[in-house]
Amino acid sequence: MNKQLLFIKRPQGEANASTWSLETNPIPEISDGEILIKQHYVSLDPAMRGWMNDARSYIAPMEIGSVMRAGSVGEVVASKNPKFEVGQYVAGTGGVQQYAVTDGKGFYPVDPKLAPLPTYIGSLGMPGMTAFFGIQEVGKIKEGDIVVVSGAAGAVGSIVGQIAKIKGCHVVGIAGGAKKCKYVVDELGFDACIDYKNEDVKERLKVECPKGLDVYFDNVGGEILDAALGRLRLHARIVICGAISQYNNKEAVKGPSNYLSLLVNRASMTGIVVFDWADRYKEGAEQLGKWMAQGKIKSREDIYEGIENFPETYNRLFSGEKMGKLVLKVIE
Amino acid sequence: MNKQLLFIKRPQGEANASTWSLETNPIPEISDGEILIKQHYVSLDPAMRGWMNDARSYIAPMEIGSVMRAGSVGEVVASKNPKFEVGQYVAGTGGVQQYAVTDGKGFYPVDPKLAPLPTYIGSLGMPGMTAFFGIQEVGKIKEGDIVVVSGAAGAVGSIVGQIAKIKGCHVVGIAGGAKKCKYVVDELGFDACIDYKNEDVKERLKVECPKGLDVYFDNVGGEILDAALGRLRLHARIVICGAISQYNNKEAVKGPSNYLSLLVNRASMTGIVVFDWADRYKEGAEQLGKWMAQGKIKSREDIYEGIENFPETYNRLFSGEKMGKLVLKVIE
Repeated sequence: MNKQLLFIKRPQGEANASTWSLETNPIPEISDGEILIKQHYVSLDPAMRGWMNDARSYIAPMEIGSVMRAGSVGEVVASKNPKFEVGQYVAGTGGVQQYAVTDGKGFYPVDPKLAPLPTYIGSLGMPGMTAFFGIQEVGKIKEGDIVVVSGAAGAVGSIVGQIAKIKGCHVVGIAGGAKKCKYVVDELGFDACIDYKNEDVKERLKVECPKGLDVYFDNVGGEILDAALGRLRLHARIVICGAISQYNNKEAVKGPSNYLSLLVNRASMTGIVVFDWADRYKEGAEQLGKWMAQGKIKSREDIYEGIENFPETYNRLFSGEKMGKLVLKVIE
Repeated sequence: MNKQLLFIKRPQGEANASTWSLETNPIPEISDGEILIKQHYVSLDPAMRGWMNDARSYIAPMEIGSVMRAGSVGEVVASKNPKFEVGQYVAGTGGVQQYAVTDGKGFYPVDPKLAPLPTYIGSLGMPGMTAFFGIQEVGKIKEGDIVVVSGAAGAVGSIVGQIAKIKGCHVVGIAGGAKKCKYVVDELGFDACIDYKNEDVKERLKVECPKGLDVYFDNVGGEILDAALGRLRLHARIVICGAISQYNNKEAVKGPSNYLSLLVNRASMTGIVVFDWADRYKEGAEQLGKWMAQGKIKSREDIYEGIENFPETYNRLFSGEKMGKLVLKVIE
């Protein structure tokens, strides 16, 4: 049987138990051109909240009644598609379910001997690619830049900061809580980390970036984005990757009041969506894999178990009760 | 004697009569290296409101008791500086006064035979340069782009839209009132103009830009910026040139709630300050002059008279009771 989590109700504000329904259905037969994937892990990402809205975005809204959209990694257990073999491991967007049937579009092979499976939906998957292309191609970091990253202990932010360190930047993270900040500095090697839950971000940024900042990689939006805007240097670049502080708003998003700092400093604010870089994922994964093998980039997944625990695990994205990439093991 | 307008009190909210004081002082003697300029016209610009704030910006705040900062054009009537000759006309930042003493820094010669003097502080001066480099170098317009410009009847916006037309773009203006909109379409040749005082900008933008917009040149901020953000196409560019709707705020600036459209559309929002392009002003002025001579760009100045009328003339910037570049004749 196949346990599947269906998206049954668009949330207003936070998603909750009534957003989804866990159903058990027979494992489907596959048709010509299709494969059946036994899924091991699914990825939990803040972007999921956006997919639930019935609004024009970079991807179609999820339809009511569909399997909850999610990145996943698993094993091909049946194949009527010549591009895939039984026994092969693949990653893609398989959704929150134990078995996925697909024509293979968007799935690509991964090697469990080179890295643990969860890493392929984390640092070697979309979050890693987002960080890799976001900080380098959109943020355009160069040696000596002062780089600030919010969500610094998270799946994307942790990689962003480590890449910036490799590239010779001074890197300041922003994260929630002393434990995460300690991890960001001691384990990931950032130069400093500001605890937004217990510190005045604006004041601490003045201390950590007395000359201002060249690049701000934003995963959170809200007041922290405003604080960063207040510290821009001439020609600074802000990369807009996410706005987790705003995703559960019932009212309008809080726009950045300090946006005129872009004018004053001839600075820019640019959005990134990782899919734009799909034709360069191979390059990104190879470089990240090399850095990980060299010990220059640390990857951490926070793994929970049981498809039935998806809703409470999902809530950790917004409560912050997780460390690194949030992953759910759905295989039994 | 020299009538001078001194900046005597930083305003909270709108500037008013108590912001300035008109004084009459002897015309000063000049020292070695200096010149004396008999000023004919001074420029009135929305940016003036920002210069009055005691805040870090792209230029130092005006000091209390100093002559009100303003662009100006006039005649050299005395010179102890070998770079300038008596009888020569020059433009620069002479301030709101009838006679200016300067070492000549930032002043450059202009030719009253080629264009009327007020044009040198308008379309051939800072507003023209802002438009020229802003829409081309920051907005990166290309043929076929859909371009939206706010403040379309103003000193900068009117030139922005005309350049975009020359470059083969579809150009939609936004201006206040039917008279300005008619001028923008009939005289300046924009494809359409939205009257923000009498129309729903968001709805009308849907009609005028059914496929969205590629470039938005913003002079106003506030709700109009949000409306434009809601219409971005993939990889759209927003040029942040000003935010006249926000300059007189007593509370915080209203940040653009729709800024996440930058993410969804992988778009960018970038500030421009004209001074960055100083080493290319000559190129800009020559090209604009050529287009004006060819009748491809129309320049319009709205000229008032009398230095004592500066405060009420200044208010026209914000009330919108003017058409084109606002200029005050200060010579008697």
